[in-house]
Amino acid sequence: MSHPRWLRRSGDARLEYGADYNPEQWPREVWDDDVRAMREAGVTIVSLAIFSWAKLETAEGRYDFGWLDEAIDLLHANGIAVDLATATASPPPWLTTAYPQILPVDQKGNTIWPGGRQQWRPTSPIFREHALRLVRTMAERYGSHPAVVAWHVSNELGCHNVYDYSDDAAAAFRQWLRARYTTIDAVNEAWGTAFWSQWYTDFEQILPPRQAATHPNPGQQLDFKRFSSDALKDYLVAEREILREITPDIPVTTNFMVMGETKGMDYADWAAEVDFVSNDHYRLPGRQTLDELSFSANLTGNIAGGQPWFLMEHSTSAVNWQPINLAKKPGELARDSLTHVAHGADAVCFFQWRQSKAGAEKYHSAMVPHAGTSSQLFQDVADLGARLRSLSDVAGLPRTPAKAAVLFDWTSWWAVEQDSHPSAQLRYRQEALDWYTAFLDLGVRADVVPVAADLSGYDVVVAPVLHVVPSTLALRLSEFVSSGGHLITTYFSGIVDENDHAWLGGYPGALRDLLGVRIEEFGPLLDGDTAELDNGLTGTLWTDRIDVTSEETTVLASYKTGDQAGRAAITRRTVGSGSAAYVSTRLGPDGLVPVLGDLLARAGVTSELPEALRGQVELAVRGNTRFVINRTEEPVDISALGGDVRTLTARGVAVLRA
Amino acid sequence: MSHPRWLRRSGDARLEYGADYNPEQWPREVWDDDVRAMREAGVTIVSLAIFSWAKLETAEGRYDFGWLDEAIDLLHANGIAVDLATATASPPPWLTTAYPQILPVDQKGNTIWPGGRQQWRPTSPIFREHALRLVRTMAERYGSHPAVVAWHVSNELGCHNVYDYSDDAAAAFRQWLRARYTTIDAVNEAWGTAFWSQWYTDFEQILPPRQAATHPNPGQQLDFKRFSSDALKDYLVAEREILREITPDIPVTTNFMVMGETKGMDYADWAAEVDFVSNDHYRLPGRQTLDELSFSANLTGNIAGGQPWFLMEHSTSAVNWQPINLAKKPGELARDSLTHVAHGADAVCFFQWRQSKAGAEKYHSAMVPHAGTSSQLFQDVADLGARLRSLSDVAGLPRTPAKAAVLFDWTSWWAVEQDSHPSAQLRYRQEALDWYTAFLDLGVRADVVPVAADLSGYDVVVAPVLHVVPSTLALRLSEFVSSGGHLITTYFSGIVDENDHAWLGGYPGALRDLLGVRIEEFGPLLDGDTAELDNGLTGTLWTDRIDVTSEETTVLASYKTGDQAGRAAITRRTVGSGSAAYVSTRLGPDGLVPVLGDLLARAGVTSELPEALRGQVELAVRGNTRFVINRTEEPVDISALGGDVRTLTARGVAVLRA
Amino acid sequence: MSHPRWLRRSGDARLEYGADYNPEQWPREVWDDDVRAMREAGVTIVSLAIFSWAKLETAEGRYDFGWLDEAIDLLHANGIAVDLATATASPPPWLTTAYPQILPVDQKGNTIWPGGRQQWRPTSPIFREHALRLVRTMAERYGSHPAVVAWHVSNELGCHNVYDYSDDAAAAFRQWLRARYTTIDAVNEAWGTAFWSQWYTDFEQILPPRQAATHPNPGQQLDFKRFSSDALKDYLVAEREILREITPDIPVTTNFMVMGETKGMDYADWAAEVDFVSNDHYRLPGRQTLDELSFSANLTGNIAGGQPWFLMEHSTSAVNWQPINLAKKPGELARDSLTHVAHGADAVCFFQWRQSKAGAEKYHSAMVPHAGTSSQLFQDVADLGARLRSLSDVAGLPRTPAKAAVLFDWTSWWAVEQDSHPSAQLRYRQEALDWYTAFLDLGVRADVVPVAADLSGYDVVVAPVLHVVPSTLALRLSEFVSSGGHLITTYFSGIVDENDHAWLGGYPGALRDLLGVRIEEFGPLLDGDTAELDNGLTGTLWTDRIDVTSEETTVLASYKTGDQAGRAAITRRTVGSGSAAYVSTRLGPDGLVPVLGDLLARAGVTSELPEALRGQVELAVRGNTRFVINRTEEPVDISALGGDVRTLTARGVAVLRA
Repeated sequence: MSHPRWLRRSGDARLEYGADYNPEQWPREVWDDDVRAMREAGVTIVSLAIFSWAKLETAEGRYDFGWLDEAIDLLHANGIAVDLATATASPPPWLTTAYPQILPVDQKGNTIWPGGRQQWRPTSPIFREHALRLVRTMAERYGSHPAVVAWHVSNELGCHNVYDYSDDAAAAFRQWLRARYTTIDAVNEAWGTAFWSQWYTDFEQILPPRQAATHPNPGQQLDFKRFSSDALKDYLVAEREILREITPDIPVTTNFMVMGETKGMDYADWAAEVDFVSNDHYRLPGRQTLDELSFSANLTGNIAGGQPWFLMEHSTSAVNWQPINLAKKPGELARDSLTHVAHGADAVCFFQWRQSKAGAEKYHSAMVPHAGTSSQLFQDVADLGARLRSLSDVAGLPRTPAKAAVLFDWTSWWAVEQDSHPSAQLRYRQEALDWYTAFLDLGVRADVVPVAADLSGYDVVVAPVLHVVPSTLALRLSEFVSSGGHLITTYFSGIVDENDHAWLGGYPGALRDLLGVRIEEFGPLLDGDTAELDNGLTGTLWTDRIDVTSEETTVLASYKTGDQAGRAAITRRTVGSGSAAYVSTRLGPDGLVPVLGDLLARAGVTSELPEALRGQVELAVRGNTRFVINRTEEPVDISALGGDVRTLTARGVAVLRA
Repeated sequence: MSHPRWLRRSGDARLEYGADYNPEQWPREVWDDDVRAMREAGVTIVSLAIFSWAKLETAEGRYDFGWLDEAIDLLHANGIAVDLATATASPPPWLTTAYPQILPVDQKGNTIWPGGRQQWRPTSPIFREHALRLVRTMAERYGSHPAVVAWHVSNELGCHNVYDYSDDAAAAFRQWLRARYTTIDAVNEAWGTAFWSQWYTDFEQILPPRQAATHPNPGQQLDFKRFSSDALKDYLVAEREILREITPDIPVTTNFMVMGETKGMDYADWAAEVDFVSNDHYRLPGRQTLDELSFSANLTGNIAGGQPWFLMEHSTSAVNWQPINLAKKPGELARDSLTHVAHGADAVCFFQWRQSKAGAEKYHSAMVPHAGTSSQLFQDVADLGARLRSLSDVAGLPRTPAKAAVLFDWTSWWAVEQDSHPSAQLRYRQEALDWYTAFLDLGVRADVVPVAADLSGYDVVVAPVLHVVPSTLALRLSEFVSSGGHLITTYFSGIVDENDHAWLGGYPGALRDLLGVRIEEFGPLLDGDTAELDNGLTGTLWTDRIDVTSEETTVLASYKTGDQAGRAAITRRTVGSGSAAYVSTRLGPDGLVPVLGDLLARAGVTSELPEALRGQVELAVRGNTRFVINRTEEPVDISALGGDVRTLTARGVAVLRA
Repeated sequence: MSHPRWLRRSGDARLEYGADYNPEQWPREVWDDDVRAMREAGVTIVSLAIFSWAKLETAEGRYDFGWLDEAIDLLHANGIAVDLATATASPPPWLTTAYPQILPVDQKGNTIWPGGRQQWRPTSPIFREHALRLVRTMAERYGSHPAVVAWHVSNELGCHNVYDYSDDAAAAFRQWLRARYTTIDAVNEAWGTAFWSQWYTDFEQILPPRQAATHPNPGQQLDFKRFSSDALKDYLVAEREILREITPDIPVTTNFMVMGETKGMDYADWAAEVDFVSNDHYRLPGRQTLDELSFSANLTGNIAGGQPWFLMEHSTSAVNWQPINLAKKPGELARDSLTHVAHGADAVCFFQWRQSKAGAEKYHSAMVPHAGTSSQLFQDVADLGARLRSLSDVAGLPRTPAKAAVLFDWTSWWAVEQDSHPSAQLRYRQEALDWYTAFLDLGVRADVVPVAADLSGYDVVVAPVLHVVPSTLALRLSEFVSSGGHLITTYFSGIVDENDHAWLGGYPGALRDLLGVRIEEFGPLLDGDTAELDNGLTGTLWTDRIDVTSEETTVLASYKTGDQAGRAAITRRTVGSGSAAYVSTRLGPDGLVPVLGDLLARAGVTSELPEALRGQVELAVRGNTRFVINRTEEPVDISALGGDVRTLTARGVAVLRA
């Protein structure tokens, strides 16, 4: 298989294996132990210099590259490739001391000081000047080193600094608005500033949504989210352009954070700017922790257009930044890693190689723990290295699309969780994840795809809380259904256009005709309140006062209790051979299973798994290879799948070739 | 009936009906639909230009009145009167950009930026200069327009900006203190600055109670609350004086917010400054939601001296600013509106006429919802219009006083919820509301009256948590009892004087002799702890270590458990034909019913309702008209009331003429 | 008995009795009542002028000492001694108005304004200049007054201002770091700044840990805690040096706050700087409230090296600063006071003499309550005075050491509760208190001693969560065990060195060999999760993945459930006649009782109480005197103790002489 846009490597395709490597934290003598142990563990690649700015540029324009030269040479001599960071992730103390105006400012106007990391304004011209000078210097020095196979721009861009309310941000926001709207009146129209005396007469009057007396203008808020994502993307592009200019043959990536509630960066939009997609992923404890991992890996793979991607960071065991940080149980390290591979990862890397003995992340697990290489964890790490070597043939295989998709939209996520809404309890990504869990429980593969994805190959598309539906998107969905596709959507979808303006005439304005329902008022539920359905299910969070407006609309379930008693709760309108279904309440993963099962059956989408295995295992397919992932804590008999593995161990993953 | 101080109108008295109208949010062609639908709904009046500053004064001193001229003319041509705002509620972006020193500052010293509304310092000379210029211009332009029947000063003064800690506020606070105390030593005495080394030697040393190392001086806090209410009142008067000068025939109002926990503005004190009282009211969900509405309407009516008042805003259905915003159930729109009318409202208005499609309030319901006029909600709105027309004879009728009153005191509210008290859990208005609910449950009418009201007409006065009792008030209460009145008060009443200085010698110092009890120590209860009484009731929040000190004092109930076991819990001292009762714990609405019932019986106050209806309906009386409001979710047989209505529908209101 | 370093008094030894006295809050005529009542109550000493700066220095350099002269003379004439404050606790308004740069700055950069108290930067040169001028003036004026028996430096140093993030603090922090580390590279090494690009090249780049983008560097945080404690200690020393210079015969103290979660000041380190130790103590409600009092008094006594100390403040009844402030029940006033005496207090003082009628502390109880001297509380106060007079022979007796000790370490407390740890739920002092409760429940006396204390006299030393173990401490503990001592330690002990660097090679690195166990990964538990042990106990919060590595290590209990099922939970390694035990989970007071009981039995440490009294009473010993404190709410038969008291009343304390 050939990789499009991938590491500058010779040799056979393989699954890469490695970690962030921070040799500057350790005495030189430890480095030799490091490379010996890396070879033992099967490490093929490390990311270097992520947080090394202070150690590389020790004063303005004064460089100390000796230690990095030596580290790269040592790695190269041991056959280990380098994903080299541009080292700009965190500015050194000398820089913020000399130029405190690069420090971000929070919504209340307080400065974000050094002491942690990433204390820079995405829009600071001074920061950019210094950072890009370093990028250029790095590219010129290391671009020709044979060990360097990829560039790693900055690190987790926006992890802490995506929202900056400084004067630099204000100036850049105005510039961004000029580009988007051209005239100030167009801004006024988009933001609805005719209300609350917010009408602007000059772009210079516009500010970021700093602490206000009450709910700030929602258009201002939404555009500030768009702008903030774009400002970081613009910075990414600025680094990339220098790298491409100097080292056109070395691919450029940056590590995304498709995971949990990290929502500030629209990665579907960013993906076009990197040569290959990288992602960092960490699990949070909870019932759906494994499903969330799969969801994120799946989405990452589809952001990458189905092509292989790079798992840049995850953890061998516990992290340090959650309130309580659980160690991984036996088998979880390999299971988590292979789940990413199952969804298209061709590299499995960790933060970090050797666990720090000091600093904020010293309790974050690593490939070599505090206990050293004489430890179960290092043994597990080495075992995983061997497992990955045995799967070299997987490298380069694209994800094999499913027949169903879950649509994911950053704009809806941003808009729907803004204030002044019918319910402040609505969680966009959780609802999407609940549907994904229902797919897993039913044993039906589904792709998690960005909203702009081509839907034509799918039989079923679930669009949970697709709140923002511009007319173009409404048209796309309508065409999908007209072409025989089956659309499923939920409460609070199709409510506003791209400017967060309500579609009028009855909800959900953008999808009303397609769904054949009309809603005059929302019926959110108080915490603890429920609405019973006549199919035995229980809704929470939301209900709608639905009127059925089309003869083609069938009521699949009705409310039995509450303010909507007697009205439709779940509907389905047939449109030729296609259909458009509406679920007006939150059912949770368990409640969605029968509903989704019914809708899939009507759409003719069936599980690829034998009935006994549905829900027990997750199936993911890359070309000729099936990954079978045990979702349970017990062994599972998978002999029915016909591979050479008969029993899947607890937390185990089987890789079956055709 | 004739209205004192009311709209400049000719024609018969009627109940006004309408809304805030914001035509500037909509294209011109929508306006014609608006007036058509207004006539259909029976709208008689709209409030215009509330948030129009930015659209009326587009740059300093540059005006654009064309659109407003046109809107007023259109309304007038359709017979709709205009309550015209002075348009100063929220300053335009050009103003705050040019003069950022008008922006408020919060307690921590952070600026309140534009983006929401009301981002102005009540004490800013610069804001006042610009705002009053606009008021003058508006008055000169529109004072002679026949459509304009009232002036609407600003909007919900103090909703977000009552507490400002800026340097402007500091200067004005010092000025206010000079006026109140004359000498700095009098401030020192009032604030008790001999402690904690807070002794001031010059007014210039005084600051607002900005973020401090620990609990700020309570006198400073209490006076800052008084000052802040006065500062806004002073601003109200400044607008009013210009309006009176230019348009002496047009009455001036401003919309109060007598509702829920809005407590910064002492409306009992403000009422004298307006020509007629207006109020905004929104319900919060909960068991006492309807009682709270009645309580607020009742209090508003008594702030207005029993004269008719103007319900300037409430909602047709859901609002947008609560965490979860419930739609109104069938019947609630009319019931809520008529409950206000029952308590003296001669106008029923909403925020707003047409639901916005953009902006922070786009999910706030309106008379015309997003769904349009073809909707159940608009039908309900039109039905209510017709109902109000049928009640024209009610207009102008004053509230008919009850035999019992609940005393309400802003100063006690402010003082009792300050920090460093025996319990931080005490909620002043909730305790008052609990007593009011008990009255409703017993079917006994009670007036909610400001503390300064004339009590001579009442048989029973309940003064819940009347914490601040200056000697003059102690005397008034004593005289009320001596004259045969029956006073009921509670825990933590009569504890301090007007300067928040404890009355010494045993609690409650100001009422000790009147009540015939003495308390050496308070006995607050931890959350979850209770104290059982020997009458079967259960107290929470508070107990007192009571010694009975008068032979005329009868113990009505004693503590059975807890630290006060064996001591008196509820006492009543007879004074001639009057009495003074004391309830030393929180009993909640259910617990208060038997206690209040017993005390009312002893005072000879009886329900005006047949026994079967007590608690089922609320009775309110205006002159010859009885309003009977269903408090339940079921139909109620009211034939015993002798009107022409036999059955009150669920959530229904009957209006019975003598 | 003779007191080392104690009040400048003639006459027989006695237990002092008194309070803070603030005559400046009251008219002159009240003072006469005050001294009369003081004599009635048996008051021997009062603290004067604590918050009198504003009343003593009314403008820069202008003094008004008349009122204080008069107060001191009046007290002296009545035989009441004076513990005279330096009056610097809270700066007057004229000072902060003239020099706002002495106001502290919080972590977010917001100023701490006047209005409360203690609004001064510990490191402000300007504050120090003015405060020390006042100290000098006070010392010169009052040093020769015969009433003045001690100096009271400031008040509760650091109660509100220990953490200041101002530029003054930054400058002083750098100075402190220069002194500690000499070179900037040593700081870099200690703080692990090689990570996250935090490498400093100049001391001038260092800042306090102000609000950062994410977890600030833990070394920076820990050193800022050390610095902040030292900065206040340095200020204490500055005042003391002036006092010693001018009045070498008058001992100097300052009131510590060894209580609850007050943790900013390392009092074990401060104790050497005062002539005698004073402490303030207030109880928080809860099951262990009395044990916490004993724990604090015990620790205070051992900070004082076993010598008598001064209880400078506690309360006669309720305080004002908790969310809900409970009055004391009958008997608690005396019980609490005598528990302090039992642990070495030779003075029982209160905040304050007469309850304020105004100000933030007006609801704080006092010796004379709002109700006046005709009150139960004042009677209890007078009774306590008489009781203390009857115990004069106790004065000067040192604490009699126990055979067991609980080790207490401020550095571990600071370090272990920093962020980015395996669990954010770990509470250092609570775990120590739980062990102390287990000792009390077992009826075994234990000393709570600072980590630097000489351990050689103890048979058993419990070191709960002794997180920070430098190599010197590891050696001390090892020698203790080698010498036959029995060490007990817990989860997350021995993990880091003095710089918060993890000891490598397997946890707990510093104690691994001594304990004979090795842990590769921590197993913190989520809230609500538990781990069952095979001895029937239940662990929460934490588990460890223990490997037993020494043949001398015995497994005392194993995990039965959870991730560590089958592994050791509690171990004990014998080392000659000594031993080192490890408890890897949180068992709570009840769970620790059998574990500690078993370990004490193995160590040969037995209760000094008859079996029936163990857990019922606390025993504390000073020389020939035993204090027997009823821990229950019922009478207890103590005739078995052989004293002249047969029955201990509920909440009672018996004092038995040999």
